[in-house]
Amino acid sequence: MKKIINEPLRFVDEFLEGILLAHPDLVKTPGDDPRILVRADAPVAGKVGIVTGGGSGHLPLFKGYVGKGLCDGVAIGNVFSSPSSAQVFEATKAVDGGAGVLYLYGNYGGDVFNFDLSVDLAELEGIPTRTVLGCDDVASQPKERAADRRGVAGIIFAFKAAGAAAERGDSLDEVAAVAQDIVENTATMGVGLTPTILPTTGKPSFELAEREMEIGIGIHGEPGIHRGELESADEIADHLLAPLMADLSLVAGDRVAVLVNGLGATPLEELYVLYRRVHQNLAAAGIEIAKNYVGEYATSLEMAGASISLLKLNDSRLELLNAAARSPFFIEA
Amino acid sequence: MKKIINEPLRFVDEFLEGILLAHPDLVKTPGDDPRILVRADAPVAGKVGIVTGGGSGHLPLFKGYVGKGLCDGVAIGNVFSSPSSAQVFEATKAVDGGAGVLYLYGNYGGDVFNFDLSVDLAELEGIPTRTVLGCDDVASQPKERAADRRGVAGIIFAFKAAGAAAERGDSLDEVAAVAQDIVENTATMGVGLTPTILPTTGKPSFELAEREMEIGIGIHGEPGIHRGELESADEIADHLLAPLMADLSLVAGDRVAVLVNGLGATPLEELYVLYRRVHQNLAAAGIEIAKNYVGEYATSLEMAGASISLLKLNDSRLELLNAAARSPFFIEA
Repeated sequence: MKKIINEPLRFVDEFLEGILLAHPDLVKTPGDDPRILVRADAPVAGKVGIVTGGGSGHLPLFKGYVGKGLCDGVAIGNVFSSPSSAQVFEATKAVDGGAGVLYLYGNYGGDVFNFDLSVDLAELEGIPTRTVLGCDDVASQPKERAADRRGVAGIIFAFKAAGAAAERGDSLDEVAAVAQDIVENTATMGVGLTPTILPTTGKPSFELAEREMEIGIGIHGEPGIHRGELESADEIADHLLAPLMADLSLVAGDRVAVLVNGLGATPLEELYVLYRRVHQNLAAAGIEIAKNYVGEYATSLEMAGASISLLKLNDSRLELLNAAARSPFFIEA
Repeated sequence: MKKIINEPLRFVDEFLEGILLAHPDLVKTPGDDPRILVRADAPVAGKVGIVTGGGSGHLPLFKGYVGKGLCDGVAIGNVFSSPSSAQVFEATKAVDGGAGVLYLYGNYGGDVFNFDLSVDLAELEGIPTRTVLGCDDVASQPKERAADRRGVAGIIFAFKAAGAAAERGDSLDEVAAVAQDIVENTATMGVGLTPTILPTTGKPSFELAEREMEIGIGIHGEPGIHRGELESADEIADHLLAPLMADLSLVAGDRVAVLVNGLGATPLEELYVLYRRVHQNLAAAGIEIAKNYVGEYATSLEMAGASISLLKLNDSRLELLNAAARSPFFIEA
């Protein structure tokens, strides 16, 4: 295991301290706990707050989407582990501007448990909340059980759109409806080539043979739907894209946003080789890419691999994606 | 070798096609060759053009720094190989707005040879040029021979500052002077943990044992100055930072820009662990970080490792760093 770290148990707090030292103009911690991060101007009076969170190890997810036009706060846990309900609640209080708080995070058991506990704590405090779960990983459940799917990289579309809705003054119910609408029109599929090595144990999150890949793998190494010989970039793009197009029932004339996301160790060059094929296939199907993102948006430490996400667009969704946003890791200018 | 690619010999052209498909609003190719990229509005009449280039495999370097307030054009070669003089010359003609063209690239033999040939071609065409070489890698030569050093990640400071100077209307000599001033006040040192695997051969660019690291390694795997047992993040930061501070003769009261750059496979979390220590050490020495960049700015495909660059600041350098810029990979808003 080759990592640039100090004491493994200090890893999460140390990179969070680094983020706070690097970006004091954009984010702050409301108390002493670097695992709770809110935008520097939080709370914004009269604005709906958005709190996200989850395990560490996915930068720029989740810490990277706190800022103007995005989320207001985040609480994160150890690598691949949920934050505590107390941490979620502290983030909630810190971003509450009097218009309520939306919880927007990925559908994982530990996160749901702790955010739900914080819902109750917030209610006692008189802070109304709504919850929308990212559940875009089509490999994790069939379409009929879409609400039970895991949340992966596609949640950034929901951060962006809900963040823009909150910024323009939408009510709590309206912001929640925007997030839900985005989630229901987002689909993601990933491929893993090499595992994450967990800092505390030094153990890989899964194992693959020298020439193997796994399609549909989760960002914590959850099993996918196909394990086999490593394919070409074009074949991989084809295998990831087809289920997404089917899941969203895309037809000629539709518009989409595309996210080609690197899982950590995969070079940007390879992501553009994938994007090229995605663009070609969608163009051939008469589907327009009205917005694209290529890079690392939700990773799994040093996992090699990638995911493709599609968001089916309409005018209002595209307008929300194009609205100004600013965090240390995400700029829409 | 696990890569998401098609035919290895098509790798470079395919990722460049991907970039062109993804960002037609920001960049274009002046002819049929995707290895020549210029900003979408090139040539900008009356503005000094800036052309960079070098080998492929370093995204976002070099292709990523073409845009408003940055470079105007780029010509790139195969992985780790120089572009041809014909390609450099084609980029030159495409960005020539009548105010001359600055060549700003890293100090490597093949690149110098081909850019110098293009200098002659441009002269025949009546396009005046100036050349400034990035030579920030302090591990590659001692201070007395600073102009012979290799160019690595620190060149992005020169792109940013020279690009801003050109954008505000500086003359060719003035833009060249800005670039030269930045280069002379920039120092970089890197550490490698695992090698790049070359797509065409499947061979690693260098070899390191399971627990080894190499300090001072070049971005093509050029030998460094110390090979030994992998150290902690804080120790690595200390070993990279001290020579940079000495090289730039930093003293209490100085201001710097810091770039903590990932070489490809190193998680963003680890870069922030390094940044934390860099910040602590500089603060302890009474040196202010007035600008910071943490992420992947100049990579070596899937090499694991990082580099630290410092730019000694004054008011005019900082103003140029803070000026607006926009490329597919770099935004200063």
